[in-house]
Amino acid sequence: MQYRRVVELMTEKELGLHLEVRGWVRSCRHSKEVTFIDVNDGSCLANLQVVAEGSLANYAEEVKRLTNGSAIVVRGEFCASPAQGQAVELRASTIKVVGWAAEDYPLQKKRHSFEFLRQISHLRPRTNSLGAVARIRSALSYAVHSFFKERGFFYVHTPIISTGDCEGAGETFTVSALNLEKLALQGQKLDWRQDFFGRQANLTVSGQLEAEAYAMALGRVYTFGPTFRAENSNTSRHLAEFWMVEPEMAFCDLQDDIDLAEEFLKYLLRYALANCQEDLALMMNYVDKDLSLRLENVAEKAFVRLSYDEAVRLLTDAKVDFSYQVQWGADLHSEHERFLTEQIFKQPVVVTDYPLQIKPFYMRANDDGQTVAAMDILFPGIGEIIGGSQREERLERLVGRMESLGMVLDEYQWYIDLRRYGSAPHAGFGLGFERIVQFVTGMKNIREVIPFPRTPGSAAF
Amino acid sequence: MQYRRVVELMTEKELGLHLEVRGWVRSCRHSKEVTFIDVNDGSCLANLQVVAEGSLANYAEEVKRLTNGSAIVVRGEFCASPAQGQAVELRASTIKVVGWAAEDYPLQKKRHSFEFLRQISHLRPRTNSLGAVARIRSALSYAVHSFFKERGFFYVHTPIISTGDCEGAGETFTVSALNLEKLALQGQKLDWRQDFFGRQANLTVSGQLEAEAYAMALGRVYTFGPTFRAENSNTSRHLAEFWMVEPEMAFCDLQDDIDLAEEFLKYLLRYALANCQEDLALMMNYVDKDLSLRLENVAEKAFVRLSYDEAVRLLTDAKVDFSYQVQWGADLHSEHERFLTEQIFKQPVVVTDYPLQIKPFYMRANDDGQTVAAMDILFPGIGEIIGGSQREERLERLVGRMESLGMVLDEYQWYIDLRRYGSAPHAGFGLGFERIVQFVTGMKNIREVIPFPRTPGSAAF
Repeated sequence: MQYRRVVELMTEKELGLHLEVRGWVRSCRHSKEVTFIDVNDGSCLANLQVVAEGSLANYAEEVKRLTNGSAIVVRGEFCASPAQGQAVELRASTIKVVGWAAEDYPLQKKRHSFEFLRQISHLRPRTNSLGAVARIRSALSYAVHSFFKERGFFYVHTPIISTGDCEGAGETFTVSALNLEKLALQGQKLDWRQDFFGRQANLTVSGQLEAEAYAMALGRVYTFGPTFRAENSNTSRHLAEFWMVEPEMAFCDLQDDIDLAEEFLKYLLRYALANCQEDLALMMNYVDKDLSLRLENVAEKAFVRLSYDEAVRLLTDAKVDFSYQVQWGADLHSEHERFLTEQIFKQPVVVTDYPLQIKPFYMRANDDGQTVAAMDILFPGIGEIIGGSQREERLERLVGRMESLGMVLDEYQWYIDLRRYGSAPHAGFGLGFERIVQFVTGMKNIREVIPFPRTPGSAAF
Repeated sequence: MQYRRVVELMTEKELGLHLEVRGWVRSCRHSKEVTFIDVNDGSCLANLQVVAEGSLANYAEEVKRLTNGSAIVVRGEFCASPAQGQAVELRASTIKVVGWAAEDYPLQKKRHSFEFLRQISHLRPRTNSLGAVARIRSALSYAVHSFFKERGFFYVHTPIISTGDCEGAGETFTVSALNLEKLALQGQKLDWRQDFFGRQANLTVSGQLEAEAYAMALGRVYTFGPTFRAENSNTSRHLAEFWMVEPEMAFCDLQDDIDLAEEFLKYLLRYALANCQEDLALMMNYVDKDLSLRLENVAEKAFVRLSYDEAVRLLTDAKVDFSYQVQWGADLHSEHERFLTEQIFKQPVVVTDYPLQIKPFYMRANDDGQTVAAMDILFPGIGEIIGGSQREERLERLVGRMESLGMVLDEYQWYIDLRRYGSAPHAGFGLGFERIVQFVTGMKNIREVIPFPRTPGSAAF
């Protein structure tokens, strides 16, 4: 007996096959003579309708008692469905109940709020919407790898446990193997030299610096891994643990970097449009009706590119009463970014050449002495989705900047070495992966697009 | 002027092209009239020979002073090479020195020990051997994703920060955002409720339990991410941070699991053989001359499958004086595993049905009451490369086992839920990704196959 997954049967043309399906009851309608069971096995959004006649040996004892969530194995004949709502169905010859769902199974056939579903993150992928998000996330992950592979990039696993801090002032989690409870009681100075790595270690905030080392060897590389912020932000936009994609290219300037980033984002959107149609259709029906139009728009139109100078001018000229004042030298706030993308241009915007003083040490100084070769890509409804820059490849400039920021050069000697041995212009960017999953799925809260979100006060599961 | 990467030029048939190459000097031979420069851009192992005539404008001032490691941009004509050693070369019309290598550049044209190279992990991918390892690692990563995609698995990002401990007794790193230095001085009881997540958190040792939750929704899933052990093992086999691949399948038993694991390993080996020929040839020349033969052997022959009972009998009958005695009920030691794979069978061996008392709580109890549906795949020269099992899907059995181990059920309620709501047989395994990279590259020390190894006393870079 051939075991088939539902996703395969949705395109199977050969009727009359005898086959086996294994999955979970999504809903069922019982009567004395017949039960219709929608079976889902997670391989796709669609359920397969199983028709169970009263003549089945376990009809009264088991089939008629089936409830949502139960696991079953069905054998039967794969047929055209005479009824509306589905093209095909499985006429059961046997139904084996593998696992009953307890009576308090929380996923009944009604819409549950995302807040409620977050309390049961271990069950929520069994819902239509969160299952679709999980499949779309998986498809986008694959697209990340195929995009870079097609362009000759190598995937590099940069370290998670780190002893530096890429952003200079990020709030990081400490990683320790010390018996902290015991040490706390002792009331003595903590000696990190006794810790596992012989010094204080933390969770990485970015793989960029290490990716730069590999770019200066392999030419084109990217990372795709978890990064961390110990920032106490309980918002719909922040996670303490999230995944970042960070390409880095040698012999590459800011324009090449922007070109790659734009091509990359469009590739991801087109990939989703081509490969996740069924799941996207669900998101359009239940989450965001303009989803597909929005994705197609962004995938086709050239992004607007303008300098920070111009952005500030446009925002100032707009005479809007922002909560935060627009001022040259200050970072753009979310409201400003959204005004640019949603009101002025109604499409993605790339802002370049930000003031030096608001950007990290590694960004390349422009000739004006005031700005750096940085770029942020802003998306309507999302805000910043990508941040990148050309890196400072000139030894004296880099060291000078680090000294002016009071950084401990010894800690970064290896990074400085990259400018002492065959330095070359290079650039890269970071994509917060959850942001693109949000954009593609239309999900408003970032906690819905990662399987088990980590946020202040919450690391259950 | 067309910019081309060296890897493209190695298969370029059209001679006479005028093009630009960007890379680093691997070696050069200077004379008064001409300089031969081997340029590497990391896109492949091969260098492109650049011929620089004395007539170049900057010949005396720059070209003749070039040393290893310098970054250059060369424009010229792509030609057949009249000399032996390479088929093609680039006859330079201009050479721009983009970045000089300081005189103390540590990578000169001689072989460096892997121990030495580990001290300069930021530069070692510029060597032939570590560059090859990095490219092979990247290729194998891609193969992981394509293998599972082709089989309808979804990639799931399971959490890195965790509040459980999958193995029950693993040594884990604590993750904290508390001001530990300040708290240590105070000499009071540490209150984890004040910490970022409101409780003690640690770095995951496995994504399996969370992957199980997703397998029970999407059917077939896999993880591929970093995992951590705070084990003070300073050996050539251990890392504090390493990458694991963990598939998990619903409606799947131990035999299906072994079948998938064997197919997976063979796929990875065949992928490397087909896609990494140049880099593998280098590893054969310098690291392990039998490499390719070994990979082909393992990729083609069926793995030996035997029970733990049989393994113990074979090892006992062998009458070898092992350091650790072979005894039913004790775990197999590395020497036993190697004896099975290297002496008795001379090929990979799958050992199944280990004693219950030496295996974790989640493994499915066999009917004999003594063993569990576990499997380890042992490789010659490597030892255990994959460990897996069918999971205990029966609620009473699982809870009984957890209670007998003194586990706090409340902490695992979500995991237990998976057995209360539509439980189904399911199974999975874990591949230590570095182990397969070691097997494919022939590298003896695991620290050579991850970019920036984290080990006791060492988390530099």
